Amino acid sequence: MESLVTRLALMQGMARPTVERKLMVICCADHGVTAEGVSAYPREVTAQMVLNFLRGGAAINVLCSQFGITPMIVDAGVDGDVVAGVVDCRIGRGTANFAHGPAMTRAQVERALENGMRLAREARERFDVAAVGEMGIGNTTAASALLCAYAGIDPDEAVGPGTGVSAEGVAHKAKVIGDAMARHREVIASGDAVGILAAVGGFEIATMAGFLLGAASVRLPVVIDGFISSAAALAAHAIDSMVLGFLVFSHLSSETAHRRLLNWLSVQPLLDLELRLGEGSGAALAMPVLDAAIALYSRMATFAEAGVAEE
Amino acid sequence: MESLVTRLALMQGMARPTVERKLMVICCADHGVTAEGVSAYPREVTAQMVLNFLRGGAAINVLCSQFGITPMIVDAGVDGDVVAGVVDCRIGRGTANFAHGPAMTRAQVERALENGMRLAREARERFDVAAVGEMGIGNTTAASALLCAYAGIDPDEAVGPGTGVSAEGVAHKAKVIGDAMARHREVIASGDAVGILAAVGGFEIATMAGFLLGAASVRLPVVIDGFISSAAALAAHAIDSMVLGFLVFSHLSSETAHRRLLNWLSVQPLLDLELRLGEGSGAALAMPVLDAAIALYSRMATFAEAGVAEE
Repeated sequence: MESLVTRLALMQGMARPTVERKLMVICCADHGVTAEGVSAYPREVTAQMVLNFLRGGAAINVLCSQFGITPMIVDAGVDGDVVAGVVDCRIGRGTANFAHGPAMTRAQVERALENGMRLAREARERFDVAAVGEMGIGNTTAASALLCAYAGIDPDEAVGPGTGVSAEGVAHKAKVIGDAMARHREVIASGDAVGILAAVGGFEIATMAGFLLGAASVRLPVVIDGFISSAAALAAHAIDSMVLGFLVFSHLSSETAHRRLLNWLSVQPLLDLELRLGEGSGAALAMPVLDAAIALYSRMATFAEAGVAEE
Repeated sequence: MESLVTRLALMQGMARPTVERKLMVICCADHGVTAEGVSAYPREVTAQMVLNFLRGGAAINVLCSQFGITPMIVDAGVDGDVVAGVVDCRIGRGTANFAHGPAMTRAQVERALENGMRLAREARERFDVAAVGEMGIGNTTAASALLCAYAGIDPDEAVGPGTGVSAEGVAHKAKVIGDAMARHREVIASGDAVGILAAVGGFEIATMAGFLLGAASVRLPVVIDGFISSAAALAAHAIDSMVLGFLVFSHLSSETAHRRLLNWLSVQPLLDLELRLGEGSGAALAMPVLDAAIALYSRMATFAEAGVAEE
């Protein structure tokens, strides 16, 4: 807990860090790779869940209201109408299918990164800490592909059941990703971090990655949620490794690839909740831990003050 | 999260469980085995920390106020004056040294168990959920000894640095416990659960074990803190295994023996915080997770209500 407070102090550049005003940025988008049959749910669920977020009926709404977090729903590229109440950062109606070509053009990924950076700079005016969550049918496949491309991990070790696909489905996901690694081998071998993100990433992942980079530049601590937002952290880290100093990894999800990703970044998650909810739930649950750490730091008597004998 | 709500519903025997009114019972006592030099801190620290709890200067006070938990400080056998503000359940001024004989007499351990059961029955009138924490210099040694005695684990595998003893100190602790296993081998071999608790337990551990048994009898869910309160759960489980159904294990502490203990009971902790604070801190941090689980259960729209397409 002490090291958490120390880290927050370093991030904010203040001796007494504060996490009073909390923002939850939920980036939503669709994925062309769903055409390969990699998801248990149909693509329409992304747009339906965006409406659910706006109506306040989703898990993340309940958790935000429980823990005093302001939710912000960002449409980074949902395949549906832009709806009132979302922050419009839409790059397109879902990415292209990375089984056949790059998911995004260079211009698209750069716009998504810039959108995220701008959101972070604006957030710093009104908030002390942010969290990132996401919604996007097919985005575990994109996240796994990014893990393979950036960390050189084998597709079989980088995939999991996502939101409930079968063992067969997992093998199929690994095959789709393996084929994509072959198709995009040139950009992967080049080590071009933005190019890799364009090749197999997603609009919401690129927007989150931009948010993390922007947040680091304005000293806004960001709490990372599960596997997908960790993949955004991986992309941001590949673009500029100093970003890690401004991130708190909230939890280890039950997606096994998540542990590999966190190990590769050499970071420790705060909680181990076996969540499979996404949306930002794990990051929301980490917020009271941050509150508690700072309360302990500011309000606890030192041993000397309390008259406790020294070792 | 769903299984947590289901478990709370089963514990309370209600379709809509509630955890609104929260109690933190902190059981404090001293240990005769400190004469063997097993602790980094002097014995006086127990009484000093009790005063610190009463003044509100300890970590657990900050966490209780942060998460709306009512603290109750129980003096189960501190070596010092009984101070105003504690619940007086004192059995003696610290246990006897279990290196030379039983830590408690049969009458003493039975009184401690009864005290705990009574506290639990009274707590049920005013609270929906309780947590147990503790303070007692020397009590990691007692907890390790209980782990060896109940679970048949080797002393070397059951000890850790406690509140900061050296590697040499850890080896010494293991030797003290190994010798105690030999001295108390008859009662250990007999499998007499209460006798084993008397032999190598502690007043606060027995009081907590009683609290857990009493809580189970009145359907009060109890959140377990770290290694010491888990040892109390181990003792309670040896006395009546149904007690496990009423417990939530809050976190995995950095005391390595804690993992062995939880594995032996086949229980999963909610959080992995690498805490070494004791006092009940981990259990306090688990409370917002319980709140969130119940809020999710009662307030989240179902997929049907939210108009989300089915699989």
